[in-house]
Amino acid sequence: MRNIKLVLEYDGTAYNGWQLQEKGASIQGEVEKAVLRSIGERISLKGSGRTDAGVHALGQVANFLTNSTIPGDRIRYALNNELPSDIRVMLSEEVDLDFHSRFNATHKRYRYRLYTGEVERPMLRNYSYHFKYPINVELIEHASKYFLGTHDYQSFKGRRSITKSTVRTINRIDVAQKGEMVDISIDGQSFLRNMVRIMVGTLVEIGSGQRDRDSIPWILQQRNRSFAGHTAPAKGLFLEKVYYD
Amino acid sequence: MRNIKLVLEYDGTAYNGWQLQEKGASIQGEVEKAVLRSIGERISLKGSGRTDAGVHALGQVANFLTNSTIPGDRIRYALNNELPSDIRVMLSEEVDLDFHSRFNATHKRYRYRLYTGEVERPMLRNYSYHFKYPINVELIEHASKYFLGTHDYQSFKGRRSITKSTVRTINRIDVAQKGEMVDISIDGQSFLRNMVRIMVGTLVEIGSGQRDRDSIPWILQQRNRSFAGHTAPAKGLFLEKVYYD
Repeated sequence: MRNIKLVLEYDGTAYNGWQLQEKGASIQGEVEKAVLRSIGERISLKGSGRTDAGVHALGQVANFLTNSTIPGDRIRYALNNELPSDIRVMLSEEVDLDFHSRFNATHKRYRYRLYTGEVERPMLRNYSYHFKYPINVELIEHASKYFLGTHDYQSFKGRRSITKSTVRTINRIDVAQKGEMVDISIDGQSFLRNMVRIMVGTLVEIGSGQRDRDSIPWILQQRNRSFAGHTAPAKGLFLEKVYYD
Repeated sequence: MRNIKLVLEYDGTAYNGWQLQEKGASIQGEVEKAVLRSIGERISLKGSGRTDAGVHALGQVANFLTNSTIPGDRIRYALNNELPSDIRVMLSEEVDLDFHSRFNATHKRYRYRLYTGEVERPMLRNYSYHFKYPINVELIEHASKYFLGTHDYQSFKGRRSITKSTVRTINRIDVAQKGEMVDISIDGQSFLRNMVRIMVGTLVEIGSGQRDRDSIPWILQQRNRSFAGHTAPAKGLFLEKVYYD
């Protein structure tokens, strides 16, 4: 038995998210099918975490156990031959049998792309959130600092989440403006369902003057989803990197 | 009667090119439909030139005559309300009645995007040409200089073209490498059908060592399509800007 680690890049537009679903295509399902077609084995792919429908990845990590003797670094060629063009294995390697893409992850980085131009640009329509009202990036940067450190994120948890503990740690947030594009990078140990999208939705409301620049500590304190901002659309979100020791 | 000029951005992936077709959707057809729905007039849209199926635009220019009294700069809002999200009017304005987007264009700039990484990236799959063999950008830059000035481009003309004169003038070519992306920008007075894509296909063959770095003058001299390189795929091509006096 061997353990294979994959680094995946995908355009989530056409998928019903990472996780295998009864209805609709999933990233996990497509990769498992590609393994079956190329290696001839039914495997169970473990991801570092789920991504929602429409969310993209530049560095999702997954692993699976196999009896195949194909060298670890060659497996990506076999899989890319079978995968649809909106999913690609960028890296494959054999790892220790006890490696688990989810349990061994130490932290993750997400990037959220906000396009603030007046007219939505066709080439960016599936890869950014078009927010067409005036936005003050300094307000977003100021407010984002309140997320740093360890807090209870109950207010920033999607309603369908079933997680018990809602305490999470954010290591770093960067807000970068380049022309009409605003990129918000969030690095944290782990995230609740929809957490990044609700954080961004709240920051956007602060940046556009709908909420006070210093309202985040109060929202965190409420421990209630209805006090935070809207859930920013999935299409602006990219899972950028998953870190391991 | 008023003359309205539009600057259009579009993702050409889903279209059968600029020109109205009997079968399949076209950019021209979609904009004409949007005018009908928003302004209530059947107009005939004149483009600065056709783009092939799958080719994108960041600054296509078109114009049409109308009896509408909607202010020129407001027309884009009306059209964007009716257009599919992969076509957007970035600018609309009233211009002199004798302005014609094609006949008055003095020159145009195209950009061709070449992705040279080993694995095609999902998010770039519709917006670049994935060329996975080693490529020497200096060779491309060297060879591209032979296109500058005025030449007979018979060898670089798509077979279905019916143009009489094949003499064209190229003002400027820039080759820029950023990581694994190579952007080739070509500025010329006008272009033959498929001309940019055949120029790029030939440059790619030179950059990968399949053709001599100094072979372009000889290819031009042959005045025969079969001596030039392959037609690079449409999806890497962007009509970037159309210039007027």
